[in-house]
Amino acid sequence: MGHSERIRIGIVGATGYGGQELVRLILGHQGTVLTYLAATSDVGDATALFPQFTGASLPNIQAYDSAVCAQACDTVFVALPSGASGTVAAELWERGLRVIDLSGDLRLPPDLYEAWYEKPAVPVKYLETAVYGLSEWNREQIRTATLLANPGCYATAVLLALVPLARQGMFAPGTSVTVDAKSGVSGAGRGTKLAHQLAELADNFFPYRVGAHQHTPEVEQQLGFSTRVLLTTQLLPMARGIYACAYIPWLHDMGEADVRQVYAEAYEDAPFVTLLPDEVIPQLKAVRGSNSCHLQTRLDERTRTLMVFSAIDNLQKGAAGQAVQNFNLMHGFSEMTGLSAYGLAP
Amino acid sequence: MGHSERIRIGIVGATGYGGQELVRLILGHQGTVLTYLAATSDVGDATALFPQFTGASLPNIQAYDSAVCAQACDTVFVALPSGASGTVAAELWERGLRVIDLSGDLRLPPDLYEAWYEKPAVPVKYLETAVYGLSEWNREQIRTATLLANPGCYATAVLLALVPLARQGMFAPGTSVTVDAKSGVSGAGRGTKLAHQLAELADNFFPYRVGAHQHTPEVEQQLGFSTRVLLTTQLLPMARGIYACAYIPWLHDMGEADVRQVYAEAYEDAPFVTLLPDEVIPQLKAVRGSNSCHLQTRLDERTRTLMVFSAIDNLQKGAAGQAVQNFNLMHGFSEMTGLSAYGLAP
Amino acid sequence: MGHSERIRIGIVGATGYGGQELVRLILGHQGTVLTYLAATSDVGDATALFPQFTGASLPNIQAYDSAVCAQACDTVFVALPSGASGTVAAELWERGLRVIDLSGDLRLPPDLYEAWYEKPAVPVKYLETAVYGLSEWNREQIRTATLLANPGCYATAVLLALVPLARQGMFAPGTSVTVDAKSGVSGAGRGTKLAHQLAELADNFFPYRVGAHQHTPEVEQQLGFSTRVLLTTQLLPMARGIYACAYIPWLHDMGEADVRQVYAEAYEDAPFVTLLPDEVIPQLKAVRGSNSCHLQTRLDERTRTLMVFSAIDNLQKGAAGQAVQNFNLMHGFSEMTGLSAYGLAP
Amino acid sequence: MGHSERIRIGIVGATGYGGQELVRLILGHQGTVLTYLAATSDVGDATALFPQFTGASLPNIQAYDSAVCAQACDTVFVALPSGASGTVAAELWERGLRVIDLSGDLRLPPDLYEAWYEKPAVPVKYLETAVYGLSEWNREQIRTATLLANPGCYATAVLLALVPLARQGMFAPGTSVTVDAKSGVSGAGRGTKLAHQLAELADNFFPYRVGAHQHTPEVEQQLGFSTRVLLTTQLLPMARGIYACAYIPWLHDMGEADVRQVYAEAYEDAPFVTLLPDEVIPQLKAVRGSNSCHLQTRLDERTRTLMVFSAIDNLQKGAAGQAVQNFNLMHGFSEMTGLSAYGLAP
Repeated sequence: MGHSERIRIGIVGATGYGGQELVRLILGHQGTVLTYLAATSDVGDATALFPQFTGASLPNIQAYDSAVCAQACDTVFVALPSGASGTVAAELWERGLRVIDLSGDLRLPPDLYEAWYEKPAVPVKYLETAVYGLSEWNREQIRTATLLANPGCYATAVLLALVPLARQGMFAPGTSVTVDAKSGVSGAGRGTKLAHQLAELADNFFPYRVGAHQHTPEVEQQLGFSTRVLLTTQLLPMARGIYACAYIPWLHDMGEADVRQVYAEAYEDAPFVTLLPDEVIPQLKAVRGSNSCHLQTRLDERTRTLMVFSAIDNLQKGAAGQAVQNFNLMHGFSEMTGLSAYGLAP
Repeated sequence: MGHSERIRIGIVGATGYGGQELVRLILGHQGTVLTYLAATSDVGDATALFPQFTGASLPNIQAYDSAVCAQACDTVFVALPSGASGTVAAELWERGLRVIDLSGDLRLPPDLYEAWYEKPAVPVKYLETAVYGLSEWNREQIRTATLLANPGCYATAVLLALVPLARQGMFAPGTSVTVDAKSGVSGAGRGTKLAHQLAELADNFFPYRVGAHQHTPEVEQQLGFSTRVLLTTQLLPMARGIYACAYIPWLHDMGEADVRQVYAEAYEDAPFVTLLPDEVIPQLKAVRGSNSCHLQTRLDERTRTLMVFSAIDNLQKGAAGQAVQNFNLMHGFSEMTGLSAYGLAP
Repeated sequence: MGHSERIRIGIVGATGYGGQELVRLILGHQGTVLTYLAATSDVGDATALFPQFTGASLPNIQAYDSAVCAQACDTVFVALPSGASGTVAAELWERGLRVIDLSGDLRLPPDLYEAWYEKPAVPVKYLETAVYGLSEWNREQIRTATLLANPGCYATAVLLALVPLARQGMFAPGTSVTVDAKSGVSGAGRGTKLAHQLAELADNFFPYRVGAHQHTPEVEQQLGFSTRVLLTTQLLPMARGIYACAYIPWLHDMGEADVRQVYAEAYEDAPFVTLLPDEVIPQLKAVRGSNSCHLQTRLDERTRTLMVFSAIDNLQKGAAGQAVQNFNLMHGFSEMTGLSAYGLAP
Repeated sequence: MGHSERIRIGIVGATGYGGQELVRLILGHQGTVLTYLAATSDVGDATALFPQFTGASLPNIQAYDSAVCAQACDTVFVALPSGASGTVAAELWERGLRVIDLSGDLRLPPDLYEAWYEKPAVPVKYLETAVYGLSEWNREQIRTATLLANPGCYATAVLLALVPLARQGMFAPGTSVTVDAKSGVSGAGRGTKLAHQLAELADNFFPYRVGAHQHTPEVEQQLGFSTRVLLTTQLLPMARGIYACAYIPWLHDMGEADVRQVYAEAYEDAPFVTLLPDEVIPQLKAVRGSNSCHLQTRLDERTRTLMVFSAIDNLQKGAAGQAVQNFNLMHGFSEMTGLSAYGLAP
């Protein structure tokens, strides 16, 4: 593909961790050219700010201006904090761009958004237009989307584990699923915070936002609202990765082999989501730096509990990677374009 | 207390992580003198092997010999691997010593032991003699014990979280409690293993022995066997600490304030176990290097689930620290003697 | 010692990492009682802020007031940032208290201070009064000091490695010593900084303040100014510890055995400083949480370079631990009182 | 390039860390197809052993057989331990394959090899045939090489920092350069070792093989043997990365701007080696997962010492990445083919 035919990409919120990962992925995507970077702080030379991009030819980071952005780009990724991101996404979409928003602003109906995010929602018009970008479960709608709500990191890890069962009607109405999830701290963003300083977080582990994490309604919405989810979110002393353990009261007589079959079929054509061989437990290191999701199941007969384990890189499949996957679907690229890296182990 | 009146202490299995922590604690315990160290490997000069003890006057580490040990000591801590430890403990107890065993060998009835450990149990005589050393819940028996089964690390973290409710009859018979527990890798012992090399485990996280961890029956036994426990055990990329999140289906109408009152009363006189103030979530760093257990509760109204969070240092309250606490009870020392260190933060 | 006879201790700057470590050590020091805690931020209940002290009885943290402090205390540790600390120390000393200052404000003559710290020096009167507290090399003066300048963390690690040679006249005038030093990030203090967030610093390593670190003149002053020191300071992805490698052009014909003898004699009566056995290389984990300094030498014949390795815990021997050691000397306690903890390994 | 025209690649020693990184890079190299994997242990299904390659189509790992290997491959990377690797490399080269050896076996003349590796050298014929693969400094010879000695990880970091000065004759004969180097533990290989277990190495730091590291003569050879190098090698508590600080006595009157000019010219056409802008210090995270080397200089006027800082990923530019770079040169690919990943930060 000639350079002049490439899709011109902008990233608004380029300096956050999601934004940096988008830059990294777009630089390796052969159908695109990066033409616009904006941020609310840290404007200037991108490679001075981010030495990992030394040698790359990057546009300067500028203060966001919708007209300038619209002129420079065909498609824009918006990766601003929730509360700011949706408005920018809507504005650029109104200017005729295709927009992929990585925040929580376009994922929920207004009442749920306002209850869990404690901020005003964007106008309902945009919420109705936005397509939810859980790639493996919404491919057809994503292909024609012009405004896309990219899923949350925890929500992605949990939904890839639970949707196969939900679509098979395997949760009795009223079932409560307990999800104990752990995340690397990059998920909390690049803003400084005492609890996220290495001196505090190294050798440490603790839950946060217990029972109140805003990805809870996002998960319940995709499961159809008949299943309640208790989502415990916890910080791991590492930069990247989400590990979710879902505990499902198992009232069926369906055995583990049948459950495995459900997953195998669900992800038969999904290049990034894999039910691992029976004896292999997912681990975070195997997916770090890749867009993969590794799944595993275990049925505990003693307590009649089905466990589903799910591991992703929060900045890839949980954010920028899935955003690029959705971009590929929206633009007719192969789903894996620019996303073929394997996990960086060791 | 003069040196000559001090209790002479031996440690068999002194080179493992539990053994090293025992050495560290006994060196700081004013009522004891360390007179005997034995190990199955690494015999020789203890400070050459363990430079953290530079400057301490330690007996050489020798190959274990029961007669030599019995002559040198009044009380012995046995911290060998399960399968070897109980036999040594029994042997030394038969020689008239008081013995504290840190392995799993003396904690379970033979059938459960053999089913979960997949090894032959020690003779039932010793199992019946051994007192289970969950200090806060068995103080009176411990005071007169001569053979003590020190609890497992996961079991301690979980039981300190669940026993208060169990003793109040708050689990309906047949309740299943899900416990998602995470541990630093020192809990796996000092033997080398590929998965525990830093190059593999740094930036990593994964479960192990899913549904099969041998501390499961230990927990259920203390809860009275009417409650089933699903215990998921997972490795954190750090050396020390256990964090357990217990999820309890909450069918009562008892509210959170009442639950907190149960814990407050249960641990009123316990110097090491604390229900933290309502707004403070336990974190591993706050208990690292101390014998403390920090607890917290949360009642999720949406799913009617009571969560109990429990944080300990696996080598202290989960092993050597509780062993010394039990030693103190057995010998009439104040419970905190030698255990007054606060958490090493940051 | 009865509680009423204990020395009443205040800590100004109690919430920083040096301050927290002082709290931890004073709580374990049987000759003292903690009567006053002050900070410039985070006033209020100390155990709510620092859950590692759960169970301890601590005074509330208050805004600093010299009159209140003077009334409440006999001796005060001042652990404020350089530029603020020295003035507070001087003020409290004028009120008749004994004062131990942990900042750089009282360690240098005014010209050097102002050149390297780029701040105005405190009045020379206080600089002349203050005794430099490198405990092992200045014991006699420390015993009678009323105003003490506690050494810097890097300076301590480097000086304990180099002073034995300097005092023997083993550096030819004009010798340049290269010191490559690495520190855990707690040495940078508790203020938040992007580069110190775990997401940035985990899996990372880099030098900072190259050729400009303010501990350089502190080291050169103690070596007598005839030796130049090039000090490279670097951040390790961990909370605690300083590791210094000193490279000394070795123009003597003195061999390594003689060098070792110099160290052995220098630290014969020093309970915290040890030249390790020949085959044992210092490691940070062995000194973590202890007041120890571990040293080792190697003479490289190929390049005629003497290497000296030095490992300390920056918050202990590099700050709060040495401050308590100096306190012990000033008050006639045994040097090890409250400092007997061995390294927290693993 | 059609699949049938691709160069058929074998990797002998595929299960070590260098081998795994080769697999990862070759999977992303569009001019190659991976046709043969061999290892001395862990034979079988490669994705079961290395879950990071889930989804990739990999040949099974088999026990090494030179005839099978020769038939299956055009070019082979040999990444066995030193002592075994060179013999295999020679054998495959004799069978007419092009061979890239990642061990130390083909880098030194026999006397130096035997003195520093304490093993017998391979026959001198192979040592004379092998081309040293420091890509940036030996491009022309590499292009026609059929047997290539890939440089050591430490040697690469150090040589990229020092060769520009050496080639300009800027070291006076007899100069001693001190290099203080730090490495992630993956450099020590995938064999298990107590000191490399996470429980031992987390929060730790220490030197090893002091004054005896086998990359020392490799560096000196490339500098022309008139410069002595003291190389201190140390373990960082992380998986990947080498950071080298070179300290050079600076007797010239050449200033820092001129020095920078030397580096700028030396690496003008080198896509992977960059002298960073003056104010930016290299950091390991910026090169992690990339084939980049970041350099920086500082001239300390006080001690007349030139410092050169060099950061690489030990498994990429220090091993597998440079091997692929050399492969590209040998086969006429663009130097960056398969190596375009930017550093994985955060």
